[in-house]
Amino acid sequence: MRYDFDRVIDRRTIDSAKWTAYPKDVLPLWVADSDFQCPQPVIDAVMKIAETGVYGYPNGHAGIVENATVSWCARHYGLEVLPSEVQYCPSMCFGLAVAIRAFTKPGGKVLMQVPAYPPFIELTKSNGRIPSMNALKLVEGRFEIDFEDFERRAADPECTLFLLCSPHNPTGRVFSKEELERIVSICCRHNVVILADEVHSGFVFKGEHTTLLTLSEAARSITVYGNSPSKTFNTAGLRAAVLISKNPALAARVKAELTASQTDRSAFSQAGFAAAWTQCDDYAEQVRAYVKENLAFAHDFFEKRIPSIKSYMPEASYLMWLDCSALGFNTQADLTRFFLEEAKVAMNPGESFGPGGKNHMRLNTACPRSILEEALSRIEAAAEKRMAELATK
Amino acid sequence: MRYDFDRVIDRRTIDSAKWTAYPKDVLPLWVADSDFQCPQPVIDAVMKIAETGVYGYPNGHAGIVENATVSWCARHYGLEVLPSEVQYCPSMCFGLAVAIRAFTKPGGKVLMQVPAYPPFIELTKSNGRIPSMNALKLVEGRFEIDFEDFERRAADPECTLFLLCSPHNPTGRVFSKEELERIVSICCRHNVVILADEVHSGFVFKGEHTTLLTLSEAARSITVYGNSPSKTFNTAGLRAAVLISKNPALAARVKAELTASQTDRSAFSQAGFAAAWTQCDDYAEQVRAYVKENLAFAHDFFEKRIPSIKSYMPEASYLMWLDCSALGFNTQADLTRFFLEEAKVAMNPGESFGPGGKNHMRLNTACPRSILEEALSRIEAAAEKRMAELATK
Repeated sequence: MRYDFDRVIDRRTIDSAKWTAYPKDVLPLWVADSDFQCPQPVIDAVMKIAETGVYGYPNGHAGIVENATVSWCARHYGLEVLPSEVQYCPSMCFGLAVAIRAFTKPGGKVLMQVPAYPPFIELTKSNGRIPSMNALKLVEGRFEIDFEDFERRAADPECTLFLLCSPHNPTGRVFSKEELERIVSICCRHNVVILADEVHSGFVFKGEHTTLLTLSEAARSITVYGNSPSKTFNTAGLRAAVLISKNPALAARVKAELTASQTDRSAFSQAGFAAAWTQCDDYAEQVRAYVKENLAFAHDFFEKRIPSIKSYMPEASYLMWLDCSALGFNTQADLTRFFLEEAKVAMNPGESFGPGGKNHMRLNTACPRSILEEALSRIEAAAEKRMAELATK
Repeated sequence: MRYDFDRVIDRRTIDSAKWTAYPKDVLPLWVADSDFQCPQPVIDAVMKIAETGVYGYPNGHAGIVENATVSWCARHYGLEVLPSEVQYCPSMCFGLAVAIRAFTKPGGKVLMQVPAYPPFIELTKSNGRIPSMNALKLVEGRFEIDFEDFERRAADPECTLFLLCSPHNPTGRVFSKEELERIVSICCRHNVVILADEVHSGFVFKGEHTTLLTLSEAARSITVYGNSPSKTFNTAGLRAAVLISKNPALAARVKAELTASQTDRSAFSQAGFAAAWTQCDDYAEQVRAYVKENLAFAHDFFEKRIPSIKSYMPEASYLMWLDCSALGFNTQADLTRFFLEEAKVAMNPGESFGPGGKNHMRLNTACPRSILEEALSRIEAAAEKRMAELATK
């Protein structure tokens, strides 16, 4: 079917974190869900459960999530997965916590590339581990891996886990096969397990995303793969993700951690997940095309009309990383407040993504074009005013 | 409104663990959810979310679950709770895991009363701790606490947590104020934290249930209270529970554990939970009355028509503990198979509840009377045949 992503849905009337966290005159383009309605088969599946009116225990042993994952991986990655290799997990974040507890010791180190999705840092710390931050280097406007630093960190015997975000949030980098092979080779050399968070892989616009489990035998031997329909199909509120490992020893440790929390499913999560990953490929294509145009629109807008803010055109994801240094704020708090109070636009403050985040903001473009345009116009006006003030100082 | 709990709903067409785990000719009276439709306000709340068709992140900071809990505790227990004292948790079982990790060390001991709800034992073990099992003693047909043994176990310095199930599953015991005071006094003396799982407190028929947080200042100082609408309102599939502690140090440790797993809510869980605990007191009363009659019916049926099975009339919960020793099976597996294959009734095998469970079964009576009657008739026929066979041996 044909979806209308231009349609504006009033999410303030829905229980929405994105739309209820800030005052009503603020346009929220922050937390990574979209403002698009979910695919019709997902809605139908959820409605079917809702209408029964009996919300007891669903059957976690019926293979509902597992079979959908097998089908999705075969169709989209040419990857053969057995249902028994699929482990349900309430969310990708929960999966990060599981990997941290399964593959590192208290006080140990967790390798990650910064700027990083904030829970990479937060969950490492809240589980009593230490983030080991490999900073992405800006080379001719593109974020590149500092492999020397990466290997030095991986070689630390205290470091036994690398949290890979591929494609990378917030920079939008799509890592090439060569880069991934080098990462895998280093991690193999130093016995570092890789948790590959690939939740943004539904939105790839430049280069080719390589699902780590398809890369090589070496990759499969050290990888726990994580994914969810949440970004592509806007189902973060359903709470469903999967972890997959082709290495039985890693899979067993993941299973032991999940079992230790008895992470049962909700009826809604199972049904919605299965519908998304089996019946909604048309939606996936259409939403990707819409977001691609949104990103081009926003990037063009920044280049032509807001020269004081440097936008990085993401190779993947609906998130755009913005360098706001030229606006001349001394602290992240001042910068964030400027966007909230002067532009009336909420974005994620760069510093929450760790080192390299200062003076940056993350913009979520997964909304109707009209909202994006309004937000950019507000930012334009506020930035112009700010730059004029700076000029007269 | 008036609810019709006699209505038979075909749960095989719904994603139901209870109704899809066994062959179609088996009547499932096992896992603790009910076969009753949820209260209308819960269905309305869930339908409202489902109909929006946008399943992004709900707002976990809007106080939806918290305020409903404050209201519920005030109305039902006369207990004043602050919203900030309420901690959302995906399920009571997850809460057990949280308490085990927060209040014991790896290798440490966890005190519990056996027979025990199986996850008490399983989660203790899967978190690398050791169950310390205080056996309830059968005194004149009633399960009594062996306080000497309890104190000996609590005094073990390795034992720092007691998982209290109150009212008690599977025996249906309602612990008196005096018993709870003695438990609290012992736990205080030996620095043992109490996790009070009170999910069955909506079904109390004999004596008076005392919410541990209302017992005394001493109780409040060592208790983490857990509850959920799941049993009373049949919302186990919504995945929502709460943990409350009046001791800020305990609350902080619970919060640290929950944060370490980033246990976000689903939109459905929030909405359904809030409706259940604010708008459905009429349902709670009616379902309690219905279950009370079911229990009386079943108990009477066992006494008059199935003398080979001894049923304990529960003081609380919709679960009935059955002593099946007279059926003369050597193993629990044989007993369970007998009910499944001869009676075509699925119940929970007693041995999964730990020591004291052998030769027992747990019967779930939360179903329409007609289903209960059919199941009991099947058990009657199978038991008569079995006893006749035994007599001719």
